[in-house]
Amino acid sequence: MVNTVNVALDAMGGDNAPKETVKGAVDAVRDQKNVCVHLVGRREAIEAELSKYDYPKESILITEASEIIEMGEPPVMAIRKKRDSSIVVALNLVKDGKCDAFVSAGSTGAVLAGGQLLVGRIKGVERAPLAPLIPTAEGVSLLVDCGANVDARPSHLVQFAKMGSAYMKYAMGIDNPRVALLNIGTEEEKGNALVKETYPLLTACTDINFTGSIEARDIPQGGADVIVCDAFAGNVALKMYEGVGKVLLEKMKEAMMTSLKTKLGAMLIKDSLKSTLKKFDAHQYGGAPLLGLKGLVVKTHGSAKAGEVRNSIIQCITFKEQDVNGKIKEYLDL
Amino acid sequence: MVNTVNVALDAMGGDNAPKETVKGAVDAVRDQKNVCVHLVGRREAIEAELSKYDYPKESILITEASEIIEMGEPPVMAIRKKRDSSIVVALNLVKDGKCDAFVSAGSTGAVLAGGQLLVGRIKGVERAPLAPLIPTAEGVSLLVDCGANVDARPSHLVQFAKMGSAYMKYAMGIDNPRVALLNIGTEEEKGNALVKETYPLLTACTDINFTGSIEARDIPQGGADVIVCDAFAGNVALKMYEGVGKVLLEKMKEAMMTSLKTKLGAMLIKDSLKSTLKKFDAHQYGGAPLLGLKGLVVKTHGSAKAGEVRNSIIQCITFKEQDVNGKIKEYLDL
Repeated sequence: MVNTVNVALDAMGGDNAPKETVKGAVDAVRDQKNVCVHLVGRREAIEAELSKYDYPKESILITEASEIIEMGEPPVMAIRKKRDSSIVVALNLVKDGKCDAFVSAGSTGAVLAGGQLLVGRIKGVERAPLAPLIPTAEGVSLLVDCGANVDARPSHLVQFAKMGSAYMKYAMGIDNPRVALLNIGTEEEKGNALVKETYPLLTACTDINFTGSIEARDIPQGGADVIVCDAFAGNVALKMYEGVGKVLLEKMKEAMMTSLKTKLGAMLIKDSLKSTLKKFDAHQYGGAPLLGLKGLVVKTHGSAKAGEVRNSIIQCITFKEQDVNGKIKEYLDL
Repeated sequence: MVNTVNVALDAMGGDNAPKETVKGAVDAVRDQKNVCVHLVGRREAIEAELSKYDYPKESILITEASEIIEMGEPPVMAIRKKRDSSIVVALNLVKDGKCDAFVSAGSTGAVLAGGQLLVGRIKGVERAPLAPLIPTAEGVSLLVDCGANVDARPSHLVQFAKMGSAYMKYAMGIDNPRVALLNIGTEEEKGNALVKETYPLLTACTDINFTGSIEARDIPQGGADVIVCDAFAGNVALKMYEGVGKVLLEKMKEAMMTSLKTKLGAMLIKDSLKSTLKKFDAHQYGGAPLLGLKGLVVKTHGSAKAGEVRNSIIQCITFKEQDVNGKIKEYLDL
């Protein structure tokens, strides 16, 4: 157990801010004693939301930030110009050591750029990957990288494999996490130039449990705990995962609403179906960490509601308590 | 209407050969008068299957091939060594002009390699992409390339866009098909080096309907008719599409079998759900064409049953009748 973990929360970020961000903060501090949430944003709006709840007052602080970075803004420019935005102010709290972690449902680009520019990478980390957890038939897998490193080099992917192993082992409690390289076949000679160069480097790593290539088809089954790829491939995999799920569920709902008979059937299977599909709801696992930074930066879905915000805050406690950054340094020999 | 279309069918390829391949051929010639299927493989096994059916005898011929290329064999080596395999013998029927098209549910690698080596590319075509049709909420989209061109160049992707447009317009009857570039965001500055170089080249094409970037998330909704990408990204998108669908449907079935109540509910929605999900069954759309070859080569799923084989054969008739290869040459100024 460590002392209080200080989490800076972008109160203004995401589709449902500040209503759901503030509620998520309240839920988190009600559940966990050892966390203090710094709500960053427009004080008036935040206070209006906070006034709805009872909560331990010493566990939620407000830091004023007058500006908001919008979803469409060019990220680097926005970080440089909007010095008083909730994202920049919150990231500076981490940079200055006042907070251990930052959680945002705001612009992914701004969070990625700001994390790198303001908090900065651990010395020796070549690239900081965004690593969302995706639900599988067996639990959850980490997809590293889905962020900004679209033209990655083999040495980056090797670091992703090690950082991902540290995260899954210490933050998620998975013993000896299986690491696989995203590929278009499982034979060693398959793949593009990046994958072919990376494969033998991963095989040579004695400190991770590299199990070889994985096809995207086997990811939803839970074929690996850590899936390593460049951000272009990772983004395609992640977005396709989300897109197919969404369309299939929409179509299923339509099918259940076609007649009185199907509506009755839907009522009978509703509870069972919901509890099954809940396991596939990415929102319940908290946000995607940006690995390899000096502090923890967590990006939650833009559509995050209180539950996901709460889970993302609690995720930061584990990260700090388990000293995941210290473990990442050990894995990387830094 | 053209004269008879001659289709060489790999009778021995796929998980269900020769039973389902032969049945698919019989179904096709029963349905369509202007096709002649050349069943290529072991005569005895083929004749045993054929003897089960009534069909117009002049519409099905057998060409003996004693060998079979197995799924795991290194493709190029297999094509070179197994001269009497069903794939090589059938491809030579196309090469020699005895057949217009080749359909196989066998080894994808061998079909791709054999198509290029034996049938050969249309002069001026830089790469021959494998272009599966994937079902969407609105119909069906062509994903070009999911084949072997993992380290594609921008000029390849431009040709893929044009060949895909020709295919969707003339083989699938989609007017002014929307072409999109698979990307990790919709802004022009997004993407990896390949995408950034390709984007302005596609914008400059006046003969296709280029609509910009598409995120993988929007593919299942039917966001574009032709989706252009390198084979690595395409394969990741395709396999993830298949993998998520499979796991979600498995989980749904489990949820419907948990109790008597859910089983009753399942009975009530079964028909409606089946007809909805049928639209998302890739098997019903026939196989994936390998575009830009001198003849047509179509790869169907390894798990193809008679229906998919039949549809793939009928697909070849349209391809020939609509002179898709002639249209591809026009699009490419060849």
